[in-house]
Amino acid sequence: MQVYDLIRKKRNGGTLSEEEIKFFIQGYADEDIPDYQAAAMAMAIFFQGLADEELMTWTQAMIHSGEVMDLSDIEGYKVDKHSTGGVGDKPSLILAPIVAAAGLWVPMISGRGLGHTGGTLDKLESIPGFQVQLSSEKFRDVLRSCGMVLGGQTENLVPADRKLYALRDVTATVDSIPLISSSIMSKKLAEGIDGLVLDVKFGRGAFMTEVDKARELAKTLVSIGSRMGKQVVALLTDMNQPLGSHIGNSLEVIESCEILQGRLNNDVAELSFRLAAEMLVLGGVSSSLDDALVKVDELIQSGAAFRKFQEVVVAQGGDPRALEDYERFPQAKGVAVLPATQDGFISGISCERVGRLAVQLGAGREKVGEPVDPAVGFILHKKMGDEVKAGDHLVTVYYNDEDKADQIRQPLLACFEFAQTPVSPPTIVLESIQGDGT
Amino acid sequence: MQVYDLIRKKRNGGTLSEEEIKFFIQGYADEDIPDYQAAAMAMAIFFQGLADEELMTWTQAMIHSGEVMDLSDIEGYKVDKHSTGGVGDKPSLILAPIVAAAGLWVPMISGRGLGHTGGTLDKLESIPGFQVQLSSEKFRDVLRSCGMVLGGQTENLVPADRKLYALRDVTATVDSIPLISSSIMSKKLAEGIDGLVLDVKFGRGAFMTEVDKARELAKTLVSIGSRMGKQVVALLTDMNQPLGSHIGNSLEVIESCEILQGRLNNDVAELSFRLAAEMLVLGGVSSSLDDALVKVDELIQSGAAFRKFQEVVVAQGGDPRALEDYERFPQAKGVAVLPATQDGFISGISCERVGRLAVQLGAGREKVGEPVDPAVGFILHKKMGDEVKAGDHLVTVYYNDEDKADQIRQPLLACFEFAQTPVSPPTIVLESIQGDGT
Repeated sequence: MQVYDLIRKKRNGGTLSEEEIKFFIQGYADEDIPDYQAAAMAMAIFFQGLADEELMTWTQAMIHSGEVMDLSDIEGYKVDKHSTGGVGDKPSLILAPIVAAAGLWVPMISGRGLGHTGGTLDKLESIPGFQVQLSSEKFRDVLRSCGMVLGGQTENLVPADRKLYALRDVTATVDSIPLISSSIMSKKLAEGIDGLVLDVKFGRGAFMTEVDKARELAKTLVSIGSRMGKQVVALLTDMNQPLGSHIGNSLEVIESCEILQGRLNNDVAELSFRLAAEMLVLGGVSSSLDDALVKVDELIQSGAAFRKFQEVVVAQGGDPRALEDYERFPQAKGVAVLPATQDGFISGISCERVGRLAVQLGAGREKVGEPVDPAVGFILHKKMGDEVKAGDHLVTVYYNDEDKADQIRQPLLACFEFAQTPVSPPTIVLESIQGDGT
Repeated sequence: MQVYDLIRKKRNGGTLSEEEIKFFIQGYADEDIPDYQAAAMAMAIFFQGLADEELMTWTQAMIHSGEVMDLSDIEGYKVDKHSTGGVGDKPSLILAPIVAAAGLWVPMISGRGLGHTGGTLDKLESIPGFQVQLSSEKFRDVLRSCGMVLGGQTENLVPADRKLYALRDVTATVDSIPLISSSIMSKKLAEGIDGLVLDVKFGRGAFMTEVDKARELAKTLVSIGSRMGKQVVALLTDMNQPLGSHIGNSLEVIESCEILQGRLNNDVAELSFRLAAEMLVLGGVSSSLDDALVKVDELIQSGAAFRKFQEVVVAQGGDPRALEDYERFPQAKGVAVLPATQDGFISGISCERVGRLAVQLGAGREKVGEPVDPAVGFILHKKMGDEVKAGDHLVTVYYNDEDKADQIRQPLLACFEFAQTPVSPPTIVLESIQGDGT
């Protein structure tokens, strides 16, 4: 079998056989197939797509390019969540303790921030001492003892995806639904889970700005999972403005702690609770979404969810006192409050731009491997639909570099759009897409 | 400027600016841009094409990725020919001496065989002692003294094309008209010529099997050349059966010598004379094609063309006696004559297959860098339209490896297709496409 012929077949709109796909994926993972051939294949797939059966085989081949986690010795329902990424996107930190406190197993593998979107691992690492790079053994130990674990992808998990993902990132072949969906699902299904809730975002701060594209992706993801015998639900959720008020690594952990302690109820709380409730329904803890939402509320009010978070922080080497005494987090040297310069109603927030300004301040990274500053970021005091008077606090900026803080001041204020008549805030969850669970 | 953005722009159907194209081509030639990004770009161009202006800029950028030959110190008209390649395709060997004997300058740069098609350099090297790898100085010296030179591409000439060509060959991005045409024209225009005749082949043994595709390529090539101020003519020529009767390196030189000595007049002679005549018209030696064909005939009959070939062979270190005493060429160990097993009229010859069988015998190469056997090949005794009786000689096979000769015997016979009613031989030159010379 020649790689050339496979690229040519796909380029000409043909359908690759199971044998051909396995040959390609395994060959690429094993470095028998060079990057330039994989780049040509990825671009050919961008234009020609993958048929349903091909996509299934492609995803399977990705999963089996490395080690598949076998959690069959842990009895009970294992469930995870995946988000397509956004700004201020912290539900993982909130829902994992809730779901684990409800008795389901949450073997969560997360990623790092890149470009305008943050990453769960970077956020967790702002907790003093917290370890995200766990050996397989340690990963299992934490899962067994806490019912949840918050780790990073290991070298052996889906190596084909790690290579292909990095390649797509530099060859303009990222935004292809079959490539995105096989990448997401291969990573999640290699975790050995029974159920998966997908948070597929659309809007100005999302990877997919258009809702139709996001819906297509959601359907594809659900279809892959269902055909592989997993229970999968996808929610289409709004990412037209940052989620919650806090943006930045420690700031987002702090906001999550506030929500887990029942002291804050905002849009990101609503989304996190809904995602958690979907997970509880999948895992059979609750028989309906309404029941599940009641259960979530109980776990927040009783403190059980927050205690679960403290427990996992301890298990992963973090300082649990930081979760109540926020001064234990790395502190920013300077704080600047930016006031509104006009009256009106917030009609929009340039969400991707806010994310990029956070990166500029040091909260994120442009390139894989760059460090992030745990202390810096923004707290938004006003969001879409809020009424503002000139002089009201719009944003607080936490910074370590005064020059950078000065540079982003005007662009950050310019992210807020004003209307003179009342504006409705966006609905967080637009719709849900169910799998057939077969 | 980021390569990523350029790939993305092209992928989305955008038009690259002059600055962007130069950045990409020069970056790739200088190895600042990796193969995988160039592979993604090539595949994006395969799907999205290049607009006229882009293609011009792309070709210019390729030309200027290296040294451009400056022949302005040689007074007079410089002209070359390019063929898109085929089986038994030897007109270069025949027309270059004719055109040089007529007083035009022919600074010919040729390539090596790959896949089912042969290469002029490999053929020339079958002449004992003949050197094709010439320094720039030697190239000029031979040109000055003989009025012609038959060399290979130097390292410095269009380095971007050399890299991109090799990459396209392994990423299924060869058959893209903008990529083919910029590759051909950049190499030819970097030679510092005034005029160019293109032999664009169609049919079973051609790179472009369909005549419409070949016509599109021919028009694109002529358009690039004309817009760059060169005189360019393209002929659409038939490659549904091997050209002439001889296939294989020394065998093709021998057939060319027969034609140059006026002892053989067949389809490849007809094509070579026509191409030579087009070159004479471009260079102003003749005022019409008919006059030019008369001139060509005179140069053959007078022996001037053959003497010119002897002269250049001497100048490039070859043994000129071989051109008349064919036993001085490397000799094959064995010769097998294959007879026809049925009566009929030859209605078709599986041309690409014949080329591949020649490669299998050792006359060509599958991969760049492999050696070729100068002695082996075929002589076809019957071609399309010929009437055959069972037992008539169809092909003579010259071989060095008896096993290989045995293996190809049946497949080679199977390349001949028979009809029971008379068949017309194909017309060699289908049409010509003229540039406006501006």
